[in-house]
Amino acid sequence: MNAQTQAPDACSCPHGQQVTNLHDTGLLTPVRVGAPIEDVVSDRAWLQAMLETEAALARAQARLGTVPAFAAEAISATVRAHTFDLRGLARRARAAANPVVPLVEELAAAVRDRDPDAARFVHLGSTSQDILDTAAMLVAVRGITLIVQHLDQAAEALAALASRHREDAMAGRTLTQHATPTTFGLKAAGWLMGLLDARDRLEELLGTRLPVQLGGAAGTMAAYLQAHDVPPPQASTYTTELTRAFATELGLAEPVLPWHTRRSPMADLAHGLNVTVGALGKIALDVLSLARTEVAEIAEPAGHGNGASSAMPQKQNPALATLIRTAALQVPPLTLTLVQSMASEDERPAGAWHAEWMPLRESLRLVGGAASTAADLCSGMMVDAARMRANLASTGALIVSERLSAVLGRRLPGRSAKSVVAQACRDAQASGRPLPAVLLEIPGISDVLSAGEIDDLLDPAQYLGAAKHFVDRALEHYSSRAHVARE
Amino acid sequence: MNAQTQAPDACSCPHGQQVTNLHDTGLLTPVRVGAPIEDVVSDRAWLQAMLETEAALARAQARLGTVPAFAAEAISATVRAHTFDLRGLARRARAAANPVVPLVEELAAAVRDRDPDAARFVHLGSTSQDILDTAAMLVAVRGITLIVQHLDQAAEALAALASRHREDAMAGRTLTQHATPTTFGLKAAGWLMGLLDARDRLEELLGTRLPVQLGGAAGTMAAYLQAHDVPPPQASTYTTELTRAFATELGLAEPVLPWHTRRSPMADLAHGLNVTVGALGKIALDVLSLARTEVAEIAEPAGHGNGASSAMPQKQNPALATLIRTAALQVPPLTLTLVQSMASEDERPAGAWHAEWMPLRESLRLVGGAASTAADLCSGMMVDAARMRANLASTGALIVSERLSAVLGRRLPGRSAKSVVAQACRDAQASGRPLPAVLLEIPGISDVLSAGEIDDLLDPAQYLGAAKHFVDRALEHYSSRAHVARE
Amino acid sequence: MNAQTQAPDACSCPHGQQVTNLHDTGLLTPVRVGAPIEDVVSDRAWLQAMLETEAALARAQARLGTVPAFAAEAISATVRAHTFDLRGLARRARAAANPVVPLVEELAAAVRDRDPDAARFVHLGSTSQDILDTAAMLVAVRGITLIVQHLDQAAEALAALASRHREDAMAGRTLTQHATPTTFGLKAAGWLMGLLDARDRLEELLGTRLPVQLGGAAGTMAAYLQAHDVPPPQASTYTTELTRAFATELGLAEPVLPWHTRRSPMADLAHGLNVTVGALGKIALDVLSLARTEVAEIAEPAGHGNGASSAMPQKQNPALATLIRTAALQVPPLTLTLVQSMASEDERPAGAWHAEWMPLRESLRLVGGAASTAADLCSGMMVDAARMRANLASTGALIVSERLSAVLGRRLPGRSAKSVVAQACRDAQASGRPLPAVLLEIPGISDVLSAGEIDDLLDPAQYLGAAKHFVDRALEHYSSRAHVARE
Amino acid sequence: MNAQTQAPDACSCPHGQQVTNLHDTGLLTPVRVGAPIEDVVSDRAWLQAMLETEAALARAQARLGTVPAFAAEAISATVRAHTFDLRGLARRARAAANPVVPLVEELAAAVRDRDPDAARFVHLGSTSQDILDTAAMLVAVRGITLIVQHLDQAAEALAALASRHREDAMAGRTLTQHATPTTFGLKAAGWLMGLLDARDRLEELLGTRLPVQLGGAAGTMAAYLQAHDVPPPQASTYTTELTRAFATELGLAEPVLPWHTRRSPMADLAHGLNVTVGALGKIALDVLSLARTEVAEIAEPAGHGNGASSAMPQKQNPALATLIRTAALQVPPLTLTLVQSMASEDERPAGAWHAEWMPLRESLRLVGGAASTAADLCSGMMVDAARMRANLASTGALIVSERLSAVLGRRLPGRSAKSVVAQACRDAQASGRPLPAVLLEIPGISDVLSAGEIDDLLDPAQYLGAAKHFVDRALEHYSSRAHVARE
Repeated sequence: MNAQTQAPDACSCPHGQQVTNLHDTGLLTPVRVGAPIEDVVSDRAWLQAMLETEAALARAQARLGTVPAFAAEAISATVRAHTFDLRGLARRARAAANPVVPLVEELAAAVRDRDPDAARFVHLGSTSQDILDTAAMLVAVRGITLIVQHLDQAAEALAALASRHREDAMAGRTLTQHATPTTFGLKAAGWLMGLLDARDRLEELLGTRLPVQLGGAAGTMAAYLQAHDVPPPQASTYTTELTRAFATELGLAEPVLPWHTRRSPMADLAHGLNVTVGALGKIALDVLSLARTEVAEIAEPAGHGNGASSAMPQKQNPALATLIRTAALQVPPLTLTLVQSMASEDERPAGAWHAEWMPLRESLRLVGGAASTAADLCSGMMVDAARMRANLASTGALIVSERLSAVLGRRLPGRSAKSVVAQACRDAQASGRPLPAVLLEIPGISDVLSAGEIDDLLDPAQYLGAAKHFVDRALEHYSSRAHVARE
Repeated sequence: MNAQTQAPDACSCPHGQQVTNLHDTGLLTPVRVGAPIEDVVSDRAWLQAMLETEAALARAQARLGTVPAFAAEAISATVRAHTFDLRGLARRARAAANPVVPLVEELAAAVRDRDPDAARFVHLGSTSQDILDTAAMLVAVRGITLIVQHLDQAAEALAALASRHREDAMAGRTLTQHATPTTFGLKAAGWLMGLLDARDRLEELLGTRLPVQLGGAAGTMAAYLQAHDVPPPQASTYTTELTRAFATELGLAEPVLPWHTRRSPMADLAHGLNVTVGALGKIALDVLSLARTEVAEIAEPAGHGNGASSAMPQKQNPALATLIRTAALQVPPLTLTLVQSMASEDERPAGAWHAEWMPLRESLRLVGGAASTAADLCSGMMVDAARMRANLASTGALIVSERLSAVLGRRLPGRSAKSVVAQACRDAQASGRPLPAVLLEIPGISDVLSAGEIDDLLDPAQYLGAAKHFVDRALEHYSSRAHVARE
Repeated sequence: MNAQTQAPDACSCPHGQQVTNLHDTGLLTPVRVGAPIEDVVSDRAWLQAMLETEAALARAQARLGTVPAFAAEAISATVRAHTFDLRGLARRARAAANPVVPLVEELAAAVRDRDPDAARFVHLGSTSQDILDTAAMLVAVRGITLIVQHLDQAAEALAALASRHREDAMAGRTLTQHATPTTFGLKAAGWLMGLLDARDRLEELLGTRLPVQLGGAAGTMAAYLQAHDVPPPQASTYTTELTRAFATELGLAEPVLPWHTRRSPMADLAHGLNVTVGALGKIALDVLSLARTEVAEIAEPAGHGNGASSAMPQKQNPALATLIRTAALQVPPLTLTLVQSMASEDERPAGAWHAEWMPLRESLRLVGGAASTAADLCSGMMVDAARMRANLASTGALIVSERLSAVLGRRLPGRSAKSVVAQACRDAQASGRPLPAVLLEIPGISDVLSAGEIDDLLDPAQYLGAAKHFVDRALEHYSSRAHVARE
Repeated sequence: MNAQTQAPDACSCPHGQQVTNLHDTGLLTPVRVGAPIEDVVSDRAWLQAMLETEAALARAQARLGTVPAFAAEAISATVRAHTFDLRGLARRARAAANPVVPLVEELAAAVRDRDPDAARFVHLGSTSQDILDTAAMLVAVRGITLIVQHLDQAAEALAALASRHREDAMAGRTLTQHATPTTFGLKAAGWLMGLLDARDRLEELLGTRLPVQLGGAAGTMAAYLQAHDVPPPQASTYTTELTRAFATELGLAEPVLPWHTRRSPMADLAHGLNVTVGALGKIALDVLSLARTEVAEIAEPAGHGNGASSAMPQKQNPALATLIRTAALQVPPLTLTLVQSMASEDERPAGAWHAEWMPLRESLRLVGGAASTAADLCSGMMVDAARMRANLASTGALIVSERLSAVLGRRLPGRSAKSVVAQACRDAQASGRPLPAVLLEIPGISDVLSAGEIDDLLDPAQYLGAAKHFVDRALEHYSSRAHVARE
């Protein structure tokens, strides 16, 4: 029975490393391959975070005098993830449905080797969820810190693009059609604003929303108190101080209460990751739209074989945007599991908690990869302002018909200016004649508009609204945020 | 062709109301039937919000002197949703894929009836998305304001429960099994903390994260400037002031830039609703767990035929918790669409924007219903503290074996106390003999533990850790938050 | 307490119809407004289906002689949904968390008015879930039958398009870039194949996968047997025959066992709806891609104000495709709830069952609207073959460089033909010179390729592969399926 | 620029294996650790499938005489995944956003080493998507074949349980409350039916729904024809035969047309996996419900440290059910991405295709782990029939009040039997007196029911309906299916 626990792997290394069949090399998720995030969220990194959590707990207990300093030191000296057999832990994790149970056994044995008297202080008073939740928060903080750095690189590049193209007109497109003119500067400023929104949500997470977990088996901290013979009158102070010391050791937030089954931090993480990948995905989607062969207003940075095709020598695919989009498509459903795990019954649920780990790791990894890729994309983006102008001009003056309509609206009070202009547009398109000529033939128009006025009204470059001011506003907002971030 | 646009409804009222086949009466979503939220998010309410948005825009323009006061007044006087044909607007919404296009036509006609000179100031410079997005924010603010009120009612009831049952011991349950003791007060305090987390997220939304939308066709505000002949040097000031005046009129936040395709506010809304329904769903799930026939520690408020069965006369179903759970199951997937709509290409996407409306309404409605239902559930919850004690005692002393293990751990340094206790537990269970007797027979145990000590160690009521202090901490946190809310 | 049960609505009609705030007119989901599906999945239609289910149960029991014929007739004569107060039922549904409990009371009263002796045979032996699940299957069958009709209309139009444009070359596009040529016929044939896939899945549903539900309170049919004093030896036969008679009455499938908590039919429904809306959404997405201003190869049917903008007179938005896409974006997350409801604990879950109803209705309604809209779109689609040719030519000969590469590969065995061609493509693009000229200058090329050969190789119309044969194959497949469908 | 492409890994093995930070050992997903599925869906296995696909293509081309036999042999002899550098391929996959491009380069080089003349026949006429989609289908077939085997093991165990406990009464529970009696045999039969539903869907997949992909760059197979100089008149036959030969080589289905952007197979896969994990998750959820400390009707197989806790020595957690549930919670959101990838624009989408790979792998792996774990759980499940009887008796006779109500309904025609019984139940519960005594005091009851009759009516074992017949029916259904499967 229970074949999964007993069957050996087909192949294993002398040092407990499995090398053949068990890799997750990123072959199926190239967006994150080679990105710094990989080191931070790997199985090895999770294990390291769990070990550091055990050590931090012992040190926090030592700070309060309830664990001897030598024991905390011995434990701290032992927590090196590479000395543990990851795959063996993964196997043995099945018995308890979580990896902390076997990890504590192995850690205690390793500490015992170093100092026999210290071993009994390992995991003292603790429960699997305290360790794993805290380690998850550590991993999340490290991942998000990296993501913020990538966002900052991308934001800097976008701010430069917005500034450089502040007045470069291009077609604004709605429902796939040319609408009214905008500028590429404003488009880049909009992307930048998206990244700043994401950054805000991530900073909020890093600030106060990723707390340590410290509750013990059923969330009362009874075993922590018991293990240290804390007398009842000091229970309140002791639990508060232990939690604070533990949080301080790890640089995590201090929770009001244990949150074993109050999973707001997971939902908050889901949100931060979604807003981030959503903002990155928006950039990717726009790049894809503007890189279309017929549009060709933007191209990706060349070099490094970027965008090659296995069949077509001429193709230059927007590979970076495609990679980013793969993350944007995968992350929201993944994080749904984090949100749905708020349905955690009793004092520890049978499954909802355990279902969080993979989606959290995978989401962090995909977002980290997307952010790193976006930094490359934004830094190297090739913008063809001439092509933007040409596309804008390609529909004749139709793209500014809204403006014409507005002016006529005031000068032809008794008539529907919008209908008049719409009809003229259709006639111009059908006949291939220029819109001004068609317009001036309509009875009454030449009474209120001169040919020169029409030409001005139909110049896209004169109908950019507040686009350049919006760029300025976004850049100011960016500067003020960057200032905050530096402090 | 285009049968959907042409076919008449089978039945319609003289006043444009459809009464037969088109209702959404809540038959399939009883969780929200009769809840105040229904009035606030109905189709009629959305229409009203769109009309108010048009009026607010006119008044904001009037404040800046670019629309005459009489026109703003005429428009404001005309915006009564019940005078518009909702179903007719819905039909005509198909042509533009949104309802604002026909609404503007009907509104202009209605204003014309009141004052022919005012009609041309309707929707001046605007675009469908400015109106619909702003109206969606208005609807959201109103819905969330209601939800916060329900949360406050539920929180007050939970605070009372936590206080009343501060020291009432019950079994803590993890992975469906008795783990170590806790108190019902702490459970209620945990639920309360969940609601306070939700309230925080909702207050954040109400504070600064639900802004007006004001961008015009492609987000440059060109038409707003054009319509009012604002000279270029004043464009920056004018657009800022118009946005501010518009936001002030509606009590919404002022955005840095238009956000037509930067949908962070939708993702933020999704998050707030998810955290709220997640916290409510956690309460429901625990009530369902504790109301099980065999557990019977909690019952729902009786009366009003609550919990009746169509077949079984004896049944008292936990109907309120079941209703709340229906919302908790439906909302996260619904809100996923809001998050995924961040993938909004160009200056207005062809579908992603339009796909937000139904999920947003339905999520608000379900969460509003769940919050209202939870207020009832928490206020009337019947707690059976005696049954809790009885269930706690039902496993003999096994539930506090952790404690025994901890104490033995220190007194039997050379041995694995956990293994000793585990074996004793198994023997006690197998033989039906009391755990103390089994323990004292194990060689070496009586040397380090007396029978009296064992009895003390195995009393669940003496192993509640910091539970009561955690209740106090949660209540303090609640008070400080409530204080903030009142200000 | 329990405000939701007690508070009256603000407004109600004399005939029990609520007209002001409770409508769901489709204002927020225009894709389905006016489509036949609306009548089939409305609250009224669900109620009607529940009533028909009660009547069918009585008739089935009458067939087996366990209910008197007069009673079955009286019940059958009473089940007219419009005589029931929908909103009242919705309100009272809260007490039991489902609408069947109050419905049975009202139905019994209505039957009693007609024939006092018949009333006690209403819902005899039954349970809420038997009625509601069976009614849901009825609603689903009716909805899917409509959807299949729309798919057939769309398929017919696509078959005609595929045939008409069998040899019309256009650019094949991969990762947004021109790749190699294809034909519009093949694109339409691919869309057609998608609809046929969807039709297959829907026919499968209609065939055997939407069964009646008949289990009684806990799935043993005990009450059905008890109510009719069926002696134990006949229990097996009786339950089989009752289920068969019930299924026959309603035209639904006969299940092997009751499926109260085995929700495969819901997951199957989710799948059928997803494949359908996915296939429709693929068409919409391609239309949106091809309708882009710069591409302009396809336009939507004009007329009926289709595609109007509230701001821009010149715009012709692809509104039908946009509407279809709104459904394609909303349905998969909605149906996720149906799939997740397979997590149904015990003999009836507390919430998972109840959470199915709204997502099922909304999904059916959106897919029905999308299918109806797609029938319009496909029937009226305007294809610009000349523009397709022009776009194809716009990249010079680059689009067929793959072909060149293949031929050179065989003639230049020692060299990487793909690299040679790629470099030539880049040089041609950079210099603006024609690719043939650039090629012939490369040492060794003129030895293996003549200028005439190069011209032939670079003619897109000569590089369409098996496109026209694939069109034929798809049309044959369509014909064979249509034949099956007609039988 | 483009740091991700350039930065070396921190550590690598001499044989190109990365061993430190890149593992996915299953630490975060213990449900699948050690299960056979791991070998079948690993990165290495995907690579192997891609290589086999390249070889099968060459052999299929050789069958048709368009590739020389020696070349097909050389390619077939070269495709050994362990000789390729997975991590290197993953890195280089970034340039084209898919791993086939670098793989083809490496494969060609490896073939060249073996036979320089054969290298140019590698990947001849092909495109990345043909290889990757076909390989994905291969991986899926292998994974699903394993899953079916696990389901068969679990089904056999469930059939035995259903048979053994055919008449063992237990409480049926609805909305968490005792409803009416059922049997454990029927519960196991219901689980069995769920697995048979899943098996049906999986067999359907294995039958015809997982086809090879063969379309070339834009789906016309132009390059396949070109590469082999197939004359136009033979294009139709050649493409048909090549596809058939390719499918035959790999044991996959033959598609009507290439399906690059018609992703029904992915949606079908999503469905099969969802129904499977849903059926497994239902078993797990019921086991969790029945294993609750207070219910204790089912326990998991003991041994192998199953269910240990890191803190509590006495706990025996239902770890297998918990593990299965982790998969049931994660898979539906993961597969959502597969369904949503039906939104594939043009001839190859920029992201939607690439986003399928990880969710497909992860879903297969989780379902494979869950199925293997369920086979263990079902085989070793410990059922306590005595406890079931005791729980059933624990509510006195209340659980069969439905029956009493039905009988009284016929004997007290003028009164509401259900109300009478409901009131008697409440009185019995409130007073602690037995229900029969309470009943007989109600005026008129003793006229129609004797005390002996009441005792019979209130015996749960006499109110099991057709439960045992349903068990028989399920077992017959199982036998007939198993027969089919063996053929």
